[in-house]
Amino acid sequence: MQMLEFGLRRAQGPNGGLTASKYCYIGGFDGTSNVLAGKLFGIPVKGTQAHSFVCSFSSANDLRIRSLKSRDGSTECDLYSLSEEKRRWIMEKVDWGVVESEVSEGELAAFVAYAIAFPSSNMSLIDTYDVLRSGVINFVAVTLALFDLGYKSAGCRIDSGDLSYLSKEVRARFGKVAELYVSAAPVLILRPPRTLTCSRHPSLDWIQSLTIVASNDINEETIMSLNEQSHEIDAFGVGTHLVTCQKQPALGCVYKLVALSGHPKIKLSQEVSKITIPGRKKCFRLYGKTGYCILDLMTLSEEDEPKMNTQILCRHPFEARTSEESHQCFCIASKSCYVSHFLFQLLQESKRALVVASKVESLHQVFWTDGAIAQELPSINAIRDRVSQSLRTLRKDHRRSLNPTPYKVSFLLFVSILVRACLEFHISVNRTKTGENRDEI
Amino acid sequence: MQMLEFGLRRAQGPNGGLTASKYCYIGGFDGTSNVLAGKLFGIPVKGTQAHSFVCSFSSANDLRIRSLKSRDGSTECDLYSLSEEKRRWIMEKVDWGVVESEVSEGELAAFVAYAIAFPSSNMSLIDTYDVLRSGVINFVAVTLALFDLGYKSAGCRIDSGDLSYLSKEVRARFGKVAELYVSAAPVLILRPPRTLTCSRHPSLDWIQSLTIVASNDINEETIMSLNEQSHEIDAFGVGTHLVTCQKQPALGCVYKLVALSGHPKIKLSQEVSKITIPGRKKCFRLYGKTGYCILDLMTLSEEDEPKMNTQILCRHPFEARTSEESHQCFCIASKSCYVSHFLFQLLQESKRALVVASKVESLHQVFWTDGAIAQELPSINAIRDRVSQSLRTLRKDHRRSLNPTPYKVSFLLFVSILVRACLEFHISVNRTKTGENRDEI
Repeated sequence: MQMLEFGLRRAQGPNGGLTASKYCYIGGFDGTSNVLAGKLFGIPVKGTQAHSFVCSFSSANDLRIRSLKSRDGSTECDLYSLSEEKRRWIMEKVDWGVVESEVSEGELAAFVAYAIAFPSSNMSLIDTYDVLRSGVINFVAVTLALFDLGYKSAGCRIDSGDLSYLSKEVRARFGKVAELYVSAAPVLILRPPRTLTCSRHPSLDWIQSLTIVASNDINEETIMSLNEQSHEIDAFGVGTHLVTCQKQPALGCVYKLVALSGHPKIKLSQEVSKITIPGRKKCFRLYGKTGYCILDLMTLSEEDEPKMNTQILCRHPFEARTSEESHQCFCIASKSCYVSHFLFQLLQESKRALVVASKVESLHQVFWTDGAIAQELPSINAIRDRVSQSLRTLRKDHRRSLNPTPYKVSFLLFVSILVRACLEFHISVNRTKTGENRDEI
Repeated sequence: MQMLEFGLRRAQGPNGGLTASKYCYIGGFDGTSNVLAGKLFGIPVKGTQAHSFVCSFSSANDLRIRSLKSRDGSTECDLYSLSEEKRRWIMEKVDWGVVESEVSEGELAAFVAYAIAFPSSNMSLIDTYDVLRSGVINFVAVTLALFDLGYKSAGCRIDSGDLSYLSKEVRARFGKVAELYVSAAPVLILRPPRTLTCSRHPSLDWIQSLTIVASNDINEETIMSLNEQSHEIDAFGVGTHLVTCQKQPALGCVYKLVALSGHPKIKLSQEVSKITIPGRKKCFRLYGKTGYCILDLMTLSEEDEPKMNTQILCRHPFEARTSEESHQCFCIASKSCYVSHFLFQLLQESKRALVVASKVESLHQVFWTDGAIAQELPSINAIRDRVSQSLRTLRKDHRRSLNPTPYKVSFLLFVSILVRACLEFHISVNRTKTGENRDEI
């Protein structure tokens, strides 16, 4: 299964489009329809024509060029006439449920124009008028004509309708055509294309496995639903739902100050998730015996690094709790003053686990420091490989679509960081204190 | 009520951010926190400091500059000491429910630093630690100190918590301070600020009407809910939900081919909303006697323009129908061939109305043609005025949030366009027809 990014027109601005193409590729997509991204980042460029390209042809009169040289350069023929010939023949042999006069002439002309431009990677958009009553017929005709000249079409794209049903119907027609064409080869010899003598008719088995690309508002749910229904799609073109995100249109991350001139800084909030973790940090990934990663561990940069094959006490301060627990926690806390409230919440919500790691990987690499690049930047393909490798070390229950297990990000000596920062804050607050006997901490 | 765009950090890429700032202003927003947009487009720049700015100060020791000249240039004083003085005094006079030692020193230092930089437009972010127990107290202290030097603070911003409650509490405190300060003026004269002789104490009524800006994930629903609860907010800073859109993360509009070399072109689809309206068009807005617009009317560019005070027969082809009607329509249609199916659906779904317009406005203005700018481009403020004027001509039922009446886009001679295009398509399809007696149309 190939995944293609088709999102440029729906991305927010040209820069948003380029960024989307780049990070889709890094995240595992196989290609993009964004030609500039292909040029700038070396991402494979994939796609077909637009509906407007197909619409722009009314008949063969709109073709400026009709002839194509054969792949080996030995001959040249009128690809439109040859395609018409093929179409007439397959209309006789295969029951398409339609008479040839209903099949669009303009569409055939468009497919021929595209095939002349890209004979070795011909890919037709077959749903401009009607996939089964016009598009697939014209596509097969052009594909057979191209094959007489030594070229193999790459495939076709369906951009509307019931993608499961249509892909299966299209695949079935490919099969029928391949079968009939081979067995009926002698018939063809009686009616050879005008400018070409077809001396041999190699097997057309490959037609059955032509790529079928599906697009049209594809998202995760559509793909899961299609996989349940079964389909004959080889590649998905995903646009809108890839470069924008229905579930989370904006990424809610922020830069916050955690230290200044070596001093840890904290931002308080009544929402636990908005309290910042003070101090400059390093980050490590701990792997288990099976090779899967167990959790990511943050430490203060001055703390000792975690070691493999030793017990590490990890704390998970922000793990999800039931809303009732959170509420109780909040009720107790809100009776106290806000410093202890904050401390209380975090300590209460800390969970602990003893972890023995078979491998410890340092995640924090410095690429920019003191106003200069500190080490060579990896290529886009190196980054992509790293992402794909990382994903393979993530357990399946973390990756499943429904109720995935949250992946833990933990702290090594969280409490010490926290208490220190809180105390520092408290001392700062109390600098001008007049001596009341209060019990904040 | 002022509306400020605060979305840069959540926009998709730098270009997406600039576009968002520009079109928010055009759409009626009063300012942006995007300084580059201010520079490039002349949009008023508004905002306050970040939480990290406040966090970065631990005490007065972090202040590099402490002195500020009075507005008339006659004197200069240590703004931090003066603010501390003011704070000590208001802590005595107003019951804030907190002792002064609990109020953050670092926050006061941050507010003073900002006030020294922007004495005439001071705007403090008061929720870094606690709005009522620290932020508002420090803000009032700095505001009173600034006022001694002849400056008036612009206001404060609250970025978390219960915005309705907090804004009302903050407003109430403003009121108390203003009242006490004026009545207690003689007290102040007994303890004058160190470097300044305060000979007069003008009224502080204006403190009650200081601007309170609210931000923090504001969207339409939050604002409607706040309006129901009542609040004391004067300006909303809207970010994420303005530059991205939870309900519709991507704008689903497309460019489609409608004509080529003077010939209308059509794209068919089983979904009525995906069928294109062929032909080159002009567009008019029809206004009723009350000044409200009735509908927008598309005509073929060669058709006569609609005239005011005459009856115009308008057709609304794509008006929403019940899903049952659509289904029936589809069932009948799907038994027929796809050309008549298409025609049938569109004709069935056409609704008509006789409209007499008191005013007809041509909406189609050509700014770019034959590779050149055809008329002077309007300024951003001219566009903004036009948008605001347009919105005023839209009836309230079109603008309401819940179940708005859809605004109609109609056709003058829709059927003629349609039939002509369909026929053209039909003729093209039948060019090679062999004479079957079929009944597509």
